[in-house]
Amino acid sequence: MEDIKVIIWGFGAMGSGMANMLLKKQGVEIVSVCDKDPNKIGKSMYEVLGVEKKDRREVIISGDENEIFTEKCADVALLCTDSYVKGAFDKIVYILKKKINVISTAEEMAYSRAQSPELSDEIDKVAKENGVSVLGTGINPGLIMDLLAVVLTGACEEVESIECERVNSLSPFGPTVMEEQGVGIKADDFDRRVEDGSLAGHVGFAESIRMITDAIGWKLDGPISQGCKPIISNVYRETPYAKVEAGNVAGVNMVGHGMVNGERKINMIHPQQIEPELEGVSTGDYIRIKGVPDVNMAINPEIPGGIGTIAMCVNMIPHVINARAGLKTMLDLPVPRAIMGDMRDMIEE
Amino acid sequence: MEDIKVIIWGFGAMGSGMANMLLKKQGVEIVSVCDKDPNKIGKSMYEVLGVEKKDRREVIISGDENEIFTEKCADVALLCTDSYVKGAFDKIVYILKKKINVISTAEEMAYSRAQSPELSDEIDKVAKENGVSVLGTGINPGLIMDLLAVVLTGACEEVESIECERVNSLSPFGPTVMEEQGVGIKADDFDRRVEDGSLAGHVGFAESIRMITDAIGWKLDGPISQGCKPIISNVYRETPYAKVEAGNVAGVNMVGHGMVNGERKINMIHPQQIEPELEGVSTGDYIRIKGVPDVNMAINPEIPGGIGTIAMCVNMIPHVINARAGLKTMLDLPVPRAIMGDMRDMIEE
Ligand SMILES: NC(=O)c1ccc[n+]([C@@H]2O[C@H](COP(=O)([O-])OP(=O)(O)OC[C@H]3O[C@@H](n4cnc5c(N)ncnc54)[C@H](O)[C@@H]3O)[C@@H](O)[C@H]2O)c1
Ligand SMILES: NC(=O)c1ccc[n+]([C@@H]2O[C@H](COP(=O)([O-])OP(=O)(O)OC[C@H]3O[C@@H](n4cnc5c(N)ncnc54)[C@H](O)[C@@H]3O)[C@@H](O)[C@H]2O)c1
Repeated sequence: MEDIKVIIWGFGAMGSGMANMLLKKQGVEIVSVCDKDPNKIGKSMYEVLGVEKKDRREVIISGDENEIFTEKCADVALLCTDSYVKGAFDKIVYILKKKINVISTAEEMAYSRAQSPELSDEIDKVAKENGVSVLGTGINPGLIMDLLAVVLTGACEEVESIECERVNSLSPFGPTVMEEQGVGIKADDFDRRVEDGSLAGHVGFAESIRMITDAIGWKLDGPISQGCKPIISNVYRETPYAKVEAGNVAGVNMVGHGMVNGERKINMIHPQQIEPELEGVSTGDYIRIKGVPDVNMAINPEIPGGIGTIAMCVNMIPHVINARAGLKTMLDLPVPRAIMGDMRDMIEE
Repeated sequence: MEDIKVIIWGFGAMGSGMANMLLKKQGVEIVSVCDKDPNKIGKSMYEVLGVEKKDRREVIISGDENEIFTEKCADVALLCTDSYVKGAFDKIVYILKKKINVISTAEEMAYSRAQSPELSDEIDKVAKENGVSVLGTGINPGLIMDLLAVVLTGACEEVESIECERVNSLSPFGPTVMEEQGVGIKADDFDRRVEDGSLAGHVGFAESIRMITDAIGWKLDGPISQGCKPIISNVYRETPYAKVEAGNVAGVNMVGHGMVNGERKINMIHPQQIEPELEGVSTGDYIRIKGVPDVNMAINPEIPGGIGTIAMCVNMIPHVINARAGLKTMLDLPVPRAIMGDMRDMIEE
């Protein structure tokens, strides 16, 4: 069997991280990379990664997808460009029409039916017409505040409520994330930035909550509600990409709720900030199920978002290739798992 | 759509617990119960459960499977009679030939290829010939020391080693478990009881370890090694079904290892005892992955084994009905999840 062929579309933090991971795996090959960043176009992928090419085939980054995609030229494309279904939609349809499977990092694609049912139907239709499948995944949404909670309910006879909390550090992240999360801004500017949409905080509660409720058979009373509060620092905090004076914003605390039968059945709590340890906050992922039995899970420290997303997307490649055609979610496919052997061994005939 | 029809074969702690759970669920019906215990034969299932029948159809417990099973008379049979593949094999094949899906609580059925590859091939063949499927599951093996670890590796780029520890209390269990685990016996009798096979300790390490290694693509160097040590109590301990004098056995500490490329890549630690709190032992489930990234998960207290197994088996019913024909494991099917809605909503057309 030939190597599994992968195209990476969007060669930023996630796309390039997936390339690095794929280069260490057996039975898989990166055949093309697409990124519109002028600093990357025309360069060797290996040069951009700072990795030796050795006897591998050269991959020159292209800014034009039409130069890359021909029918069945790859088994799967990893799409790492967008957060919203609206932005990813045209690219996904384009790839599917080339009869290539898609894995998307777009947060909203982790459960696109939550906010984009019509676009989801269209994606599903095109995927089926072309005999390929599409999955949105990542660390969160994708695993921590949704799929993992669902798995743990598998040991429950009854579920009364589910609380997912992810307390993570933004310190490892670069300037884009600092900007998006308002790290370093004045407390007074926070509300304005939320209102004008330039401070999005975490994207994904609507998707995580719908994934959970659909999985266990709860019907949401209506749209989920969410809130977004600044984490005001009491001390000076600093990372390579951010400086926060005491009194200014160190991050964002997002909360979200899903109502079922008039009760708050799902609670999401997600404070993200730089250098949480400076104020005694230790990071971690928590799932608290009230039910029969109660389940109290903690992962300390939190599973890091960057590596986690890179790994989830790469590790799901075989499942997506094996899947029946259509739009899939993490609920439809077998459980994620690391790939320490030859990736081709995981492909069903 | 009609209710999903379930037969329960083996109406002990697990089988009767599943009946209790099923009676609280929508879109599913228990059509027959088989148990060879003379105290149960001929009695109403509702009487044995101590549950009101209301307007449900009567179910009289039968000691003879031939009185119960006709072709396609149910959608799934829950087989709760055995621990070993050898014991469950004839029953599984019998059910499959009636074109009925099977879920088995037998620990070895959770990954039957680990120790019974030929019988597994035969089960797979008969299942496919009859267009139905078979799953072995439970809390452990089935979730805690295997599937959950696999799911968490999904967020890992690399895995170096995996340690699963389950520290649980035997206090809620009855006389069978106390006997099997040697609770209350003299320390001197322990080795003899292990040797003569009357003290089995935990069954399932071989299955859990193979499930993990197959999932992530590691090849085991050879059969797994395991050890079994008495937990000697320093204090007097008592439950409704056991009394342990200081100096005697309060439970069993099982350990197991899987070697990959000459290294101990998988470690299993599973101390089970009554009243662990009396010596300051707190119960819990732990998964520790060394890799990129490290993952440290804890569930405190442990997910209880009885409820957990009952829930896992019932919750997997829709997945097993939906599965393509053949012998399945938890690795092949979508993730487990609680069923809080109508079970029929989870059945694919
Ligand atoms: N679900 C999750 O858990 C999760 C986790 C991490 C990131 N994400 C999301 O994934 C996306 C990618 O994340 P990132 O950290 O790599 O972002 P990034 O900004 O580092 O990289 C995005 C890259 O895509 C390129 N790009 C954008 N549009 C393009 C187009 N039309 N054609 C070609 N190239 C294009 C950009 O030039 C850039 O190099 C983000 O939207 C992020 O929010 C989701
Ligand atoms: N995988 C797991 O996590 C897990 C968890 C719990 C139990 N188990 C296993 O599941 C099995 C059942 O557990 P339990 O606690 O219900 O045991 P149990 O002893 O309480 O009940 C077994 C029942 O099966 C009946 N039975 C046995 N053979 C039969 C036959 N041939 N025909 C009809 N009835 C028969 C017995 O009469 C009894 O009522 C055990 O082997 C146990 O080790 C596995």
